[in-house]
Order: sequence, then structure tokens, then C-alpha cells
Amino acid sequence: MTAPLEALALARRITEQAYKAGASLVTTLFVDDEATLLRFRYASDTMFDRAPEWFYNGLAAAYASGTARLAITGSNPALLANEEPAKVARANVAMSKASRPALELIARHEINWTIVPSATPAWAKLVFPNESEQDAMSHLWDGIFAATRANASDPVAAWKKHTTALERRVDILNGKRYSALHFRGPGTDLRVGLADDHLWLGGATMSRNGIRCIPNMPTEEVFTTPHKDRVDGVVRSTKPLSYQGALIENIEVRFERGSVVEARSTQGEQVLRGMLDTDEGARKLGEVALVPHSSPVAASGILYWNTLFDENAASHIALGQAYSTCMRNSDSLSTEERFARGANESLIHVDWMIGSGEVDVDGINADRSSEPVMRRGEWV
Amino acid sequence: MTAPLEALALARRITEQAYKAGASLVTTLFVDDEATLLRFRYASDTMFDRAPEWFYNGLAAAYASGTARLAITGSNPALLANEEPAKVARANVAMSKASRPALELIARHEINWTIVPSATPAWAKLVFPNESEQDAMSHLWDGIFAATRANASDPVAAWKKHTTALERRVDILNGKRYSALHFRGPGTDLRVGLADDHLWLGGATMSRNGIRCIPNMPTEEVFTTPHKDRVDGVVRSTKPLSYQGALIENIEVRFERGSVVEARSTQGEQVLRGMLDTDEGARKLGEVALVPHSSPVAASGILYWNTLFDENAASHIALGQAYSTCMRNSDSLSTEERFARGANESLIHVDWMIGSGEVDVDGINADRSSEPVMRRGEWV
Repeated sequence: MTAPLEALALARRITEQAYKAGASLVTTLFVDDEATLLRFRYASDTMFDRAPEWFYNGLAAAYASGTARLAITGSNPALLANEEPAKVARANVAMSKASRPALELIARHEINWTIVPSATPAWAKLVFPNESEQDAMSHLWDGIFAATRANASDPVAAWKKHTTALERRVDILNGKRYSALHFRGPGTDLRVGLADDHLWLGGATMSRNGIRCIPNMPTEEVFTTPHKDRVDGVVRSTKPLSYQGALIENIEVRFERGSVVEARSTQGEQVLRGMLDTDEGARKLGEVALVPHSSPVAASGILYWNTLFDENAASHIALGQAYSTCMRNSDSLSTEERFARGANESLIHVDWMIGSGEVDVDGINADRSSEPVMRRGEWV
Repeated sequence: MTAPLEALALARRITEQAYKAGASLVTTLFVDDEATLLRFRYASDTMFDRAPEWFYNGLAAAYASGTARLAITGSNPALLANEEPAKVARANVAMSKASRPALELIARHEINWTIVPSATPAWAKLVFPNESEQDAMSHLWDGIFAATRANASDPVAAWKKHTTALERRVDILNGKRYSALHFRGPGTDLRVGLADDHLWLGGATMSRNGIRCIPNMPTEEVFTTPHKDRVDGVVRSTKPLSYQGALIENIEVRFERGSVVEARSTQGEQVLRGMLDTDEGARKLGEVALVPHSSPVAASGILYWNTLFDENAASHIALGQAYSTCMRNSDSLSTEERFARGANESLIHVDWMIGSGEVDVDGINADRSSEPVMRRGEWV
């Protein structure tokens, strides 16, 4: 388990329940935002291309031996907003490279994993800037409990019903076999080709160690693999993105034959460019996901500055690594075979939001005919 | 860096200074005593033979690539005092096995490392049980600052003077080439044969990565390698031992030809027996250290329940792994050659205190003549 220091109370509750549920050993690695800041403030400028490889390789070794992974998210989304963008970008690239082996095992769902939120003071104050810390924390917890269905009278039953509904949607989309999706809205006219043999997923996942898990809580998305070379057009982000502590706002991007060829943003542009320069695959899409504008997270009207929430409030795309499980018969395909079918490869996987109540989505069939999938952000 | 969660403030100060001193990346792994307790309370009884191997192997990989190691000690010394001794012993054995590769690199001084203390509420209340938490913390910090010379007008100069004095003592002892030490006191009549080519060390250490470090702060000891097969007699502990959160008090042990053949204690006997059963080397000595009864830690009259302090208040012996550096020309010797010269091997290395103001130590020369080394706990 990883957790911000400020999420200690939740980490301990999860630890207790994990042991009661049969865990043999729960190891929690706490992240101290303050220590990250101290590095940016005091470390020599030459030092930002280093990452703790031993640590990420250790995580990969743990996953390879079947260890479950739980991440508590809640660090300050704006932690590095005032740090030098070039240094932030370099630190992120180093971290992405070091964590690649571990991320690959996660992306392949070799083990059961999940990401859950904890309110923290810095995050709460960013979401509710005009409230006292105490009120902001209380309101953020309210939002978390609602979005994660923890406040349902029977949360487990509520999750079963919810994942069943997502799986029904997945089944419909998998029956369609669209060759592409077409997004249209203010600043957006984007055609996202889907990978050959693409598979829609959503809700719970059966991991390769045989344990069924819900990788994100909350989760409202159904998602699949775009074709890395078949994305064309322009797209405008509909929510700000918090990427590794930096804020990137009002992204506008143009794709040609799969790759980002133009990119700008009104804030965080240098971090955005650093992200795009991580590797060749960082300019291509690895995921496309559909989320209705009426999802509970979106309906709250709250901007969370946290991908786990905001990606479940709007349809989105992700630059970078594809999920290998989002392809039919993925278990029997090699990396090369998945790549040949259009699944992107990269050190990064960064979701950003392109859906809203003003965005329409069409499904394009193999015969080039099209049909409405979403209108004004809602399922047709 | 590792640190108890309660030592967060010190960890952050060290992080800041490390970056100012040129560190590229400081990664702190916080230990949560409460999570350890939750395991003992709620995990299935069958689960206590597991340890996070991926984590310890990661540490070893970090050391192998030259990473410096700093441990902040201060966890509750009595954390597991009320837990089932058999489970504590099993968890300790599992941890010792998993951490072996990392411990070996530390014992060989492949990298620069050090252990420093931080006051924590649980530790402070154990040391000063009749004081308020605030007063106990304040008094423990006073003791820490005095023992670590942090309250000297020029702490760096004070440390240079101190390590020079320890090195002078080391030079005298290395000139003697004693074949054995003879400890005598209440309940103690112990002859500790020294390893062939044994080397006394103390104070600062030049690690193999070329960085001079002070492995323990405080440090008052000079120490060397006993011969694993040449220890005979009886010995009684002079201070309680806190071993992995369990308290072991009033240890009485009999050695024959190097091995513990009888052992008892008035508290923690089952944990003691579990420790001795870790492996064959756990019954043999890996270190013998001399500390004058007038050392600042001893003079404080405080029982710290923490080996870093208590081992610097009294002469002591350690069961388990020898320090390979405590042998002449150790760099050019293989593990087998060191073993043949008497250096013990084990998964554990546990110091316990056998010196006091009532204990005398003689040095035995190769011709069986003897001379006084310590009288009533003081250097002759």
C-alpha cells in the first residue's frame, strides 16, 4: 500500500481490515509531500534525472510474486505548481522510466490492484478554497463517500449493481465493433480509431492471479484501446489536469496519424511538453474512455483536481501506454502482436478529460456508416 | 532513510540538510508501529513466517549501487511486549532471513551508513514512566543531545576529538594482539577468545565506497571479532534488552566451545530462545565490545531500552553475524577465509550488555599470561 502521510488514519483502517480478511503482511509506504518539496527547493539542479530504481524494481518483484497493490491517492494536486517546470518534467520522466517494469505488470493486471481516495488538508483546500480546513475536509470526505458509494445503505450491494450496469454497457459496445469514435464539441473534432480486436472493459476486472478487483474507486468509465496510428483532428480538454503535482489547464492538441503534432495549454505548458517528450509513445493514445455527463462525480459539480475523480466525471483519453487487457484474447498475444494491432507503448499513461455536456460522440462502423453513441454527454 | 512515523520532524530536517549537502534523492521509508500491532492483533496465526523480501532485496540493490543508508531509531521498545512470544520470534526470524542480503552489505561497510536516535512519545514514556508525555519527550531529547554531543558548542569539533580518542584506544588494543578477553563480575565468568587476525575498530569508519562515516551516534565502543568456537563460561546481562519490540530481562547464558548451551531470562525467554534458534550462528558470538562505565550514556544513569544507547553504556557482546571489517586485511579475504579465522555467520546480530561498574576485564596474551584491561568497568 502507498499512502500520503496525511492518509495515515485510512491506511490503518485498511490495514486492520486487510488482516481480518486474511492478508499475511501489509506493508505501507508513506509519501511525504514536504520531502518532495525539499528536493525541489534544495537539491542541486543536476540531480533531477534520478529516481529510486531499487524501490520501483522492488515493487515489480512484489507484483511478480503475487502481492496485491493498493494506492491511496490524496497528495496535494498543486504541490509542484510553483516549481521550475523543466525540473518537474525531468523528475517525472526519471520516475516514469524507473517505474516502467512495475507499471507494465499493473497494466497487464497480473495482480489485483486498486486506487482509492483519502481526503487530505492540502487537497481539500484546493477543492474548496473558500472554506476553513475543517469544513473543506468534511466536504471532501462527503464527496468521496458519495462517489465511492460508501454512504449507500449496503455499499457492497451498491457496487455489485453498479459494476453489473457497467458490464452491460461494455457488452453492448463490444457487440458494435466500431472502427472509430468521433468526438465533437467546442474546440474538439477528433476521430479516434480503435485498435484491431479492441475490447471494451469497465467495472470489475479479473486479474491474472485469479482475483476479481475493482481497480478504481470511484469508477464510472468504460474504456478500450485506440489504434496508436489512427487518431486525427483537434481536441480541447474540458477539465484541468493535475500531473505529478503540476497543474495543466486548457490543453489544446492536434493529432495527425496518431501522434500529437501541436500542443498548447494556458498553464503548465512546459510540463505538458516534457510529458509529450518522454518517449515516442507519449504522443500517442493508449486509452479512450466514455463517461456520461450525468455520472455522480460530474453531477456533484465539483472539480476535484484528481484524475481518479475527474476522469470519472467526463469522457477522456490517455496519452501513453495501452492496457494490454483491452484486446480480445490478450493473454495469447505477445507485446509485438498487440503493438501490431495498434496498442500503444510508452513509459507514461496520463488521462485527460475531453467530455462534457457539450460533447457528442458517434460510433463509426467498418462500412464508414455512423451512429450516435453520446449526445450532449449522455448515452444514446 | 528509515524512520518511525513519530520521527517525521527529524526526518524532514535531515532531508533538507542532505539535499543542501549534495544528495540527489532522499527516499524515506516510514515505519508505523501501529500497523505492526495490527498484524499481531488481526492476522491469521499461520502468516507470521512472511517478511517483505521485495523490500529488503530492494534495499540491498540500493546499497549495491552506492546508496547511503540512514536509520532513525525511536520505535516503541516495548511494542510487542504483550504479544505472543512464539509469533514475535517467528516474525523476527522471517525478517532476519529476508534482510540478510542487505545486512551483509551493511556489515561489510560497502556503503556509508549511520543510525541516529529521535525521541518518540512511546519511547520517552518507557524511559521516564512517571513523567508527563511532554516532560518525558523533553528529557529524552536532552539525553539524546548530550549523548550525541549535539549540545556541544561545536558539535563537529567535539565528534572529531571523540573519534580520535576512540581511535587511539583502538590502536593500543590492536598492538596487544590478545588471544582472549576474560570478563568477571556478578554471575559472569566468561572467556571470549578473539578471532585470528582480529582487528579492533571504533569511532569513524571508512566505507568501501570511499566515504568516511560514523555508523552509530552516539558511539562509545571499541569492538572486534570474537572467535566463534572459543567462547566458554557463564555471563549475566547487566541491562535489559529490547529485541524487535520485545523485552528480554536478566539473561543468563552458558557457553561451551563457542556456543550457547544454556539460556534463561526472567522476561522474554521465549523470544530469546526463538532468537537463539534462528540458525547455528545465532548461538555464537559475532562481536565483543568494550565501553567504560564512565561513558556519558552510562553516567546519565538512564536506562534507554534502546540498543543504540544502552550498548554505549556498557561493554557488550553480540550473538550472530560478525563484522567482516573487524579482521586484518579483510578486503582480501573470502567469506570462507574469514569463517576459518573465527568470524561467525548468522542471520542475526543482537548486542546485549554484560559490562557494569562491577565487571573486570583481563586481556589474555598468546603465552597465557594476562593483564588488566578494565577494572570495575573502567579502562586500566
